[in-house]
Amino acid sequence: MKSHRKELWFNLPQRRQLLNITDQVAESVRESEVREGLCLVNAMHITSSVFINDDESGLHHDFEVWLEKLAPEKPYNLYRHNGAEDNADAHLKRTIMGREVVVAITNGQLDLGPWEQIFYGEFDGKRRKRALIKIIGE
Amino acid sequence: MKSHRKELWFNLPQRRQLLNITDQVAESVRESEVREGLCLVNAMHITSSVFINDDESGLHHDFEVWLEKLAPEKPYNLYRHNGAEDNADAHLKRTIMGREVVVAITNGQLDLGPWEQIFYGEFDGKRRKRALIKIIGE
Amino acid sequence: MKSHRKELWFNLPQRRQLLNITDQVAESVRESEVREGLCLVNAMHITSSVFINDDESGLHHDFEVWLEKLAPEKPYNLYRHNGAEDNADAHLKRTIMGREVVVAITNGQLDLGPWEQIFYGEFDGKRRKRALIKIIGE
Repeated sequence: MKSHRKELWFNLPQRRQLLNITDQVAESVRESEVREGLCLVNAMHITSSVFINDDESGLHHDFEVWLEKLAPEKPYNLYRHNGAEDNADAHLKRTIMGREVVVAITNGQLDLGPWEQIFYGEFDGKRRKRALIKIIGE
Repeated sequence: MKSHRKELWFNLPQRRQLLNITDQVAESVRESEVREGLCLVNAMHITSSVFINDDESGLHHDFEVWLEKLAPEKPYNLYRHNGAEDNADAHLKRTIMGREVVVAITNGQLDLGPWEQIFYGEFDGKRRKRALIKIIGE
Repeated sequence: MKSHRKELWFNLPQRRQLLNITDQVAESVRESEVREGLCLVNAMHITSSVFINDDESGLHHDFEVWLEKLAPEKPYNLYRHNGAEDNADAHLKRTIMGREVVVAITNGQLDLGPWEQIFYGEFDGKRRKRALIKIIGE
């Protein structure tokens, strides 16, 4: 069994931002030389997300509006977590979007459907944060 | 290490519909001849879901009502994604329900709790779509 | 390839309660003697959750308030699932929080970010329930 580990580092300029990381994950699969296996991609922070959806700017706008409706950023005193911090909403937004994806590797490639793209979802940005890629297989 | 890949194809007559696919996943585990491992089952489309919950029609009705409350289908112009398309709500509903499940394989069988059943959740149906099963182990 | 399986049993006194199980999962990784691999941790029940977030009591209070807003426990007749049962809300709450996490194992340890902690989330407690740990790797 082979395994491969890689960290992707980000420092996104906005509090909330979605970044397509599909190419970086695909490159990591090539580096791993795994032909058949599983690829885990997870946020290493609890106020960000890794998820799969469409790379369409209208939809990304809809996600922003929808997440703000389900778990608004403000007023900050809505949340008991907010005292020294102001990011309780980011913990909740990431819970909706998910921490991780597991993607099949087949014939040495990410086995994605036609519109599946892997995103890093930042909900408390403007700082250095990272995602983990872990690949196992043969 | 063994690996096994299978696609399940669907063409569900309703826009939204839940389908129990536990038996089809279990059959795929038997085909794989994996005794100890992991089984990934994921939607290959970004407007459908694979999730685990109860096979109880009252609960499935509750999911429908609840998802319509959290991410309503209409009015279509509520969403910027809806122009050429009308399925923004399906992207959001599937985000709540999840893209994938990973299930342990133990002694050659799906290692599920007593009430755990695997579902394909369709939120933009009336067309051919599919889920992926990927099994690795020994 | 090595594999390791362990059940964690709970009997939490409250209907809803979050329990940090990171140490128990880490112990299971040590028992497995896996150096590089993947660790699946999932609820075996459909009214509870395994998720990763912050071990901060203010945030846990915020989760409780937020989940009650998104999927209230009462009135029980809000849900068609509630007849013989009263736990429809728990099925929905667990859907938000997620069934499972997959964590990388690197150098024989859980490969977690600095604040990532693994929780069992109970939404229909006061009874014996369990989570499954399944580890594969080498």
